[in-house]
Amino acid sequence: MSHTKQTEPQADIDELAREHFYQVLYGRRDVRNQFLPDPVPDDVLTNILHAAHHAPSVGLSQPWNFILIRNPELRNQIYSAFCQANDEAAQMFEGDRRSQYQSLKLQGILDAPLNVCITCDRNRGGPVVLGKTHQPEMDLYSTVCAVQNFWLSARAENVGVGWVSIINKNKLAGLLKLPEGVVPVAYLCVGYVSEFLTKPELELSNWEKRKQLEEMIFDDTWANRKG
Amino acid sequence: MSHTKQTEPQADIDELAREHFYQVLYGRRDVRNQFLPDPVPDDVLTNILHAAHHAPSVGLSQPWNFILIRNPELRNQIYSAFCQANDEAAQMFEGDRRSQYQSLKLQGILDAPLNVCITCDRNRGGPVVLGKTHQPEMDLYSTVCAVQNFWLSARAENVGVGWVSIINKNKLAGLLKLPEGVVPVAYLCVGYVSEFLTKPELELSNWEKRKQLEEMIFDDTWANRKG
Repeated sequence: MSHTKQTEPQADIDELAREHFYQVLYGRRDVRNQFLPDPVPDDVLTNILHAAHHAPSVGLSQPWNFILIRNPELRNQIYSAFCQANDEAAQMFEGDRRSQYQSLKLQGILDAPLNVCITCDRNRGGPVVLGKTHQPEMDLYSTVCAVQNFWLSARAENVGVGWVSIINKNKLAGLLKLPEGVVPVAYLCVGYVSEFLTKPELELSNWEKRKQLEEMIFDDTWANRKG
Repeated sequence: MSHTKQTEPQADIDELAREHFYQVLYGRRDVRNQFLPDPVPDDVLTNILHAAHHAPSVGLSQPWNFILIRNPELRNQIYSAFCQANDEAAQMFEGDRRSQYQSLKLQGILDAPLNVCITCDRNRGGPVVLGKTHQPEMDLYSTVCAVQNFWLSARAENVGVGWVSIINKNKLAGLLKLPEGVVPVAYLCVGYVSEFLTKPELELSNWEKRKQLEEMIFDDTWANRKG
């Protein structure tokens, strides 16, 4: 298994390995439309979860958990919660933008063979966690690092992932029976795909444009834009 | 350049590429002690920033900016803000735990040749952003995805990164002259290293243990722990 690598001495990353790494990083997509029903094998899922679990975490607190959601009835309830939020969201856009919003497919809750909720336990590590003393949101940010590791590792395994954020989190927490202090951070649809698109779907559909990196960089302070 | 890959048709990731990806992912460390003074070349830094900029973002809003901090005077001020927060933090631990905390080096602000603050513009994309309507924190989470892409890409370039969270964010925002609505998400120390440790420093120093993945997984709801 590749993840035994962690205990071997660390070698430099060579050019080929770097190319391969970027192939995964730039090949990652937010998948909504291309899910296939084929189940994700246990060993593949374990690789992805193991990668997520090796994300950085504040004070090594590892505040995440992984809820693997396959039950069809539960997924129907979650899908209903998405639909309600999505209808509310559509009303917030005006005119052409609203009809374009309504034409977009923004989730694969029922199409993907697996849904995964990655949660954050706000109390993990006790009341004083190294690195969280002045930024209490660091446990949430650590959990997002685990989400991004999950997403990239899935791409490395040729598995697609889509993040569903159009849902009421309290409702989701209730459906997943999360205890007090545990919050959902990411609700992910997970499965093999017919294809990985070459660009983000929102870019291909002209919803938004890719910004120029050069315009996003400053030197020393916000007063000195580089680009 | 590797990042031109994004416009080519997407091929499956093969076994060798996957191994290489995991070599990067499991080789990433939170660096505090091993920074070398050698500057990070511009093309290498551009590769890392480009990778960060290709993180997923809610509604493709790309809410991040990158502040490249090299000015020694400014870094001294930021280091002072860290020291103040770190002294406050130490007082929150008791007995042996406090002395152990005080013995840990938790940043490389002055040692690393480059510091990078990754910020989130809470107003990017206007008042209604697709996917942010029901989870307003999604722009912060997108920014953390960019941080994790930055971190992993740096490892692929054999560059170390350490995230400093022991600092007052309002003070940091003031020093970096961030405008209203732009918040610091991650303050990163960046540079080549004498070595990448085989395990997290907090694990090697017995501050915290790695948890078992099996205990972190649930089926369908929190009521069904898998492990």
